[in-house]
Amino acid sequence: MNDKSAKRIRAKIKSGEWEGTTVGRAGRHVQAGFVALPKALAYDFLVFCQRNPKPCPLLEVTDPGCPTLKRVAPGADVRDEIGRYSIWRRGELVEETSDIKEHWGDDTVGFLLGSSLTFSTALEEAGCASSSGISLYETDIACVPAGVFAGPMVVTMRTLPPDQVARATLVTNRFHATHGAPIHVGEPAVIGITDLSDNLGDFPPPLIPSGHVPVFWSCSVTAEAVAKAARIDLMITHSSGHGFVTDLLDCDLAER
Amino acid sequence: MNDKSAKRIRAKIKSGEWEGTTVGRAGRHVQAGFVALPKALAYDFLVFCQRNPKPCPLLEVTDPGCPTLKRVAPGADVRDEIGRYSIWRRGELVEETSDIKEHWGDDTVGFLLGSSLTFSTALEEAGCASSSGISLYETDIACVPAGVFAGPMVVTMRTLPPDQVARATLVTNRFHATHGAPIHVGEPAVIGITDLSDNLGDFPPPLIPSGHVPVFWSCSVTAEAVAKAARIDLMITHSSGHGFVTDLLDCDLAER
Repeated sequence: MNDKSAKRIRAKIKSGEWEGTTVGRAGRHVQAGFVALPKALAYDFLVFCQRNPKPCPLLEVTDPGCPTLKRVAPGADVRDEIGRYSIWRRGELVEETSDIKEHWGDDTVGFLLGSSLTFSTALEEAGCASSSGISLYETDIACVPAGVFAGPMVVTMRTLPPDQVARATLVTNRFHATHGAPIHVGEPAVIGITDLSDNLGDFPPPLIPSGHVPVFWSCSVTAEAVAKAARIDLMITHSSGHGFVTDLLDCDLAER
Repeated sequence: MNDKSAKRIRAKIKSGEWEGTTVGRAGRHVQAGFVALPKALAYDFLVFCQRNPKPCPLLEVTDPGCPTLKRVAPGADVRDEIGRYSIWRRGELVEETSDIKEHWGDDTVGFLLGSSLTFSTALEEAGCASSSGISLYETDIACVPAGVFAGPMVVTMRTLPPDQVARATLVTNRFHATHGAPIHVGEPAVIGITDLSDNLGDFPPPLIPSGHVPVFWSCSVTAEAVAKAARIDLMITHSSGHGFVTDLLDCDLAER
């Protein structure tokens, strides 16, 4: 049932019938971030992900040139089953598109990275929904570099009443394949976030209820950020809010 | 204190003063398996480890040609701080040695893989010591292949009284960076192990107390086995019983 639903969502995306966001629209299906790079840079990127597993949990790596997934959504084509892709040249966004076949070469490698959207439903069901939505920040926590890839960790912030912080930690720790437990609880300035209204992306600044605690999870946007910073010739990513909807359910990634 | 002790063990290994096994001899220090490959094969090996994270949890990947570790034992040299190395040519063991400097080239990449020895102490302290020691088996569970690397999963077996199986599962789940929870509990034949006396390595066949349950964890010997099966020109591994002793304590890898 759920499995069919993921396939149905991807079929609608492929056909153009579904153009909107996937955030909160794919039930308990694991959503993934997407990065495509030429094989020549894929080794360094793999090592970067190995060295920074909290922000960069790899769910699947395609064989070079092969756009068909085998594990998280067998048979899916990563070239047109994401609603919107961003094309980056030397670190600059040059185009958004719904089909990347013309950019996919014999040596292109696609990476799917676990998204913390995966545990949003589990948090909500545990009564730990963020009181201020989800905000995105760059920190001053340096990732461990690998080859051309280096830069600071990007995090998501949720805010919680003090009595829900422990529960949110325990609930998300189960999902260690998609960022796991928080990396920081409390004072944002300690990780270089001096102004909570200075959040990344197109989201409004968070409104935090008095006494609620900011809790930070590492985020796979980190991988996109370091790849952008490396100013490589061509990189393709999913566009913000348009995740790849896998066949997996969140429970498939818990306790693994 | 413990940290100094890991450095002291490695110093004794380097000087030749320590020639014996490290099994059960390094306290709570995380021990790691070692594989060295030429860069040309390192990409496929990394993808193999990504696709098979339970048997092949990567703790560190060196930069090509650089024998010095940066994370799990900063400053340690992987070429002479393991007690005994095995040199494999086209899948055949051709030499064992205590120093691999002559085999280490500009393009050699070293991989350290988490060992389940890491949670042995935690299991013992929880009252879950195996009643038959630790045995090693090849299963008929196929790993997900990557490039030249393919083959069955290798597992360790511990046997436990029935009332300790759940506790052993919970204790080891904490260590998801070093194999985590069991992959199989009970009937060995279901994963292709038809004769428990047919164990790998130099260990005696296990003597299992009546009513005790066989419990199986994935094992990083899997990585060595698939690399051997690929019959690559030159591969170096640690020799059985001679792990790399890291500066990390087991608790450093729990809940990560």
